[in-house]
Amino acid sequence: MSLVYLNGQFLSADKACISPDDRGYYFADGVYEVIKYYKGHPFCMDDHLARLQNSLASVRINFNSLAEIEVICNRLIVNNGLQSEYAGIYLQITRGVAPRIHRFPPKSITPSVYIRSFVMPVSLNELVNGIRVITREDIRWLRCNIKSISLLPNTLLFQEAVDEDAGECFLIRDGMYTEASHSNIMAVMNGMVYTHPDSNLILSGITKKAVIRICRVAGINMVEKPIKASETGNFEECFITGTGSEIMPVVSIDNKPVGNGLPGRVTRQLQKELFRITYQELAGEEIYSIFADS
Amino acid sequence: MSLVYLNGQFLSADKACISPDDRGYYFADGVYEVIKYYKGHPFCMDDHLARLQNSLASVRINFNSLAEIEVICNRLIVNNGLQSEYAGIYLQITRGVAPRIHRFPPKSITPSVYIRSFVMPVSLNELVNGIRVITREDIRWLRCNIKSISLLPNTLLFQEAVDEDAGECFLIRDGMYTEASHSNIMAVMNGMVYTHPDSNLILSGITKKAVIRICRVAGINMVEKPIKASETGNFEECFITGTGSEIMPVVSIDNKPVGNGLPGRVTRQLQKELFRITYQELAGEEIYSIFADS
Repeated sequence: MSLVYLNGQFLSADKACISPDDRGYYFADGVYEVIKYYKGHPFCMDDHLARLQNSLASVRINFNSLAEIEVICNRLIVNNGLQSEYAGIYLQITRGVAPRIHRFPPKSITPSVYIRSFVMPVSLNELVNGIRVITREDIRWLRCNIKSISLLPNTLLFQEAVDEDAGECFLIRDGMYTEASHSNIMAVMNGMVYTHPDSNLILSGITKKAVIRICRVAGINMVEKPIKASETGNFEECFITGTGSEIMPVVSIDNKPVGNGLPGRVTRQLQKELFRITYQELAGEEIYSIFADS
Repeated sequence: MSLVYLNGQFLSADKACISPDDRGYYFADGVYEVIKYYKGHPFCMDDHLARLQNSLASVRINFNSLAEIEVICNRLIVNNGLQSEYAGIYLQITRGVAPRIHRFPPKSITPSVYIRSFVMPVSLNELVNGIRVITREDIRWLRCNIKSISLLPNTLLFQEAVDEDAGECFLIRDGMYTEASHSNIMAVMNGMVYTHPDSNLILSGITKKAVIRICRVAGINMVEKPIKASETGNFEECFITGTGSEIMPVVSIDNKPVGNGLPGRVTRQLQKELFRITYQELAGEEIYSIFADS
């Protein structure tokens, strides 16, 4: 049985017990992060912790032990035997346990911290061949920049993709693509990579930021500008970015092919650059060579 | 220690244990109801159960034991010695326990059911004298008609009211009052009661429906039509409705008095009619006589 961390204790996963009075259970009153470990080495840990701190501040949860989080994550990876695996850390901090009333509990209440590790296999087939996506209205709240556990809309929207055998659900608000149900959207038009700028309408993705850095270094034209849904027919390429998705080609949107219906040249270049930083430099594995002939 | 109901068992509240893998904890993937009991008699139980069924259907949680819910609620009221009290039932149904991935778990997963009772004292002072409210942008999602536990926005918005010593937070979307953080809004202009029509932007309140019925019977003019925020200065009266709030006068909005700054005539008439149905008919107590001279 896997070891998890709950409120100061490492314990067997089947012993982890949450109070029904946890505000995470009543009100989705909490925030979270998912961090990928490449054979024992976390990708962009500092960025994840900085975003976690922002999320905590945005919902006014007082949590002063962020420095310990990284140590706990590493220990779970080691103790659960995941040092030589592609693995993930899920970590969630809620406002704590208190009787159910909407107003915040007294400041003396301690936030609840839950952290667990899991195997995160490489989606080789999808990274090579891409995924199909559907589009839906973005029905989420107006503070999507907070990585909160208030995720019912995201699960409902993603399930609609699953129901149509698609791999993601692209969200459209006021005629613009914002992001997907749990990843950021990027599209290539006239050789330029477009993605929605950071704002209250999207989560500031860690992998999104990494892709922007890669574009700068590699001299790929990139701009953070909202993409109109009406421009979909002009996409030469499209892909999503995320901790789990990494850089995942999108080959059709609402059953219409993107470009020639195959992962594009810019997408492949970005995948190779990202996988060099992650699989090669962190894990010592040349996974990106699978794209050598494309 | 109070008795609660959790997944088929009645047990002491301190023994209730939720798995951190409950989708209610990861994704706010669940729905709820709060039902008021007037000395052992529930108010509009059928309406609450019908709304619960709608919420479950909207989020596609398969739960076929609704008939048992009422029996469990009643048993908790009796076993916890609340038959002669003003009390509440909180009941929550989540999609169940499954490893954390966005897509729905297999249909074989059983939903988690948690029900507890609590004392719900009468807010006499506020019912007589009214409350102050603030206004904020309605940042919530676009399916507010579903009574989901994805309530982080509501708690954040209500806390802003608490921070300003106010009793509720009125929400404005596209220049219209939608509802408050956990109650419906009604305003009186030219003797006509206005409230937002049922739509995806508000929860269809049980007490709202009761007030509409009362207006019909009492010959009070009432229309379900969105109220413009720009009309606030024209409010002769204002009040909120809800299971906990009942009919609660609002005497100032953003520090500006409503009408003459005292609960109004129509509000009082509606309070008396509602309290006759609840406190008098259900509980045998003439609480509404406190308004006899107003």
